[in-house]
Amino acid sequence: MSVSRRDVVKAGGALFLGMLGAGSVAKPNTLLGASEAQQGPGLDLPWPYKKLNPEAAAETGYYGYYAGACCFGAFEGIISELRKEVGHPYTMIPTAMMVYGEGGVAGVGTLCGALNGAAAAIFLVTGGMDKKMREPAFAITKELYTWYEQEALPDYKPKAPRFEIARSVSRSTLCHASVSRWCKVSKFKSFSNQRSERCAWLTASVAKHTVELLNSYAQGTFKPVHALSADVQSCRQCHDQGGALENTRGTMDCGGCHFTPRTKHPKI
Amino acid sequence: MSVSRRDVVKAGGALFLGMLGAGSVAKPNTLLGASEAQQGPGLDLPWPYKKLNPEAAAETGYYGYYAGACCFGAFEGIISELRKEVGHPYTMIPTAMMVYGEGGVAGVGTLCGALNGAAAAIFLVTGGMDKKMREPAFAITKELYTWYEQEALPDYKPKAPRFEIARSVSRSTLCHASVSRWCKVSKFKSFSNQRSERCAWLTASVAKHTVELLNSYAQGTFKPVHALSADVQSCRQCHDQGGALENTRGTMDCGGCHFTPRTKHPKI
Repeated sequence: MSVSRRDVVKAGGALFLGMLGAGSVAKPNTLLGASEAQQGPGLDLPWPYKKLNPEAAAETGYYGYYAGACCFGAFEGIISELRKEVGHPYTMIPTAMMVYGEGGVAGVGTLCGALNGAAAAIFLVTGGMDKKMREPAFAITKELYTWYEQEALPDYKPKAPRFEIARSVSRSTLCHASVSRWCKVSKFKSFSNQRSERCAWLTASVAKHTVELLNSYAQGTFKPVHALSADVQSCRQCHDQGGALENTRGTMDCGGCHFTPRTKHPKI
Repeated sequence: MSVSRRDVVKAGGALFLGMLGAGSVAKPNTLLGASEAQQGPGLDLPWPYKKLNPEAAAETGYYGYYAGACCFGAFEGIISELRKEVGHPYTMIPTAMMVYGEGGVAGVGTLCGALNGAAAAIFLVTGGMDKKMREPAFAITKELYTWYEQEALPDYKPKAPRFEIARSVSRSTLCHASVSRWCKVSKFKSFSNQRSERCAWLTASVAKHTVELLNSYAQGTFKPVHALSADVQSCRQCHDQGGALENTRGTMDCGGCHFTPRTKHPKI
């Protein structure tokens, strides 16, 4: 059953959020304010999309990195193009909020900020509250994340770069692991100007590829092309949904962190 | 030097984003649209904050989880209270966008969605584009993330729970690791209804604690209380900024993934 968010809110009275796929959880009427307050024009997802220029998004992403880091750069790279091409409602979103994702969120080193910002933008233009409406956004996001793990990146060179930048395969969507693998290949340090430039290129690459995926989705030709590795598929048979252990979830490249050859710390 | 985003935009002409701390990177005038389009009322950060009720945020977070998953739940738990207490500009933000963070973003299993949504909300009410303005938001976010790694969670029980839920220490800010550690303690599977309920409680716990931190920041009493573990501090001495290797970045609990006792896969 597909139930749009607007349908649910229009229904009024007690909002049975269970309708959205979660079983018998009813939300008291007094907590409805959130949804009601959101019925202003332009807040329902997905927001209108027009085919964009991937290179323009990449260039804004590059400069956006230096203005507000990776998460802001990727998000702004895409949204600024939509502000130009579509206008409202893109003129009313505080893209500066996305600075929060810098360096794997506040420098903590978790999820790559460019991937975080890109996923938010993808959801804004292809997603929605009810479970059925999440599927396209999640499929595009998964393709982007697997591409990021498997490809040699950054694959976009800005028009006016500060340095030449080597490519590396991250095997991980995590900031700190992606940085470490690039440091190993490039021989530069993780707080060098070259590493910053690499992350600026990477932000541009992610913005560009996200726009390519969104364009293909908009014209009805989107198809995932990066399959999970045989290793990950093997792990998931036991550990993911329906497996004998079923004790985790996700599609991250397991081998990027687990079962690495060197498990003991070298002698200091 | 502290330069507000508005100051930079007001300066007009070529926007030297290097002023924001990134060296000599100039953004061409033609790419200025993004910043100019954002000068509408209410878009500059930080947005106004009023002391909130942590339990109210937790309850909305709990039901928000069942409506739009973890990232939406935590974000909406905080923002819906601000819509009630402050109104505009919180009435114009499409909180449904945050559904993207479900299950470590689109179910990929990276960053815990509740932490992702909470960090976005923290930045919105305490952050800003220029580097100096990011610091308070990042300090609050780091405290929240370290709390999440070290405390036995979930520590908030909703008023009308579906099940009783065991607590676990995640040692990680990542969705899939946090889920696995809870599965081990609780003996429930990762796709069970009990695990969903656990993540709903956790979303509530994160929303509640985020509001507690924001309240303390608003009244000038915020102080981080969760230090990085001695292990992490030791790792960072060589691997993080200024270390001999300087080949990664971040404050995640290294031992949550690296150097775990069992490194070989058990016989299948």
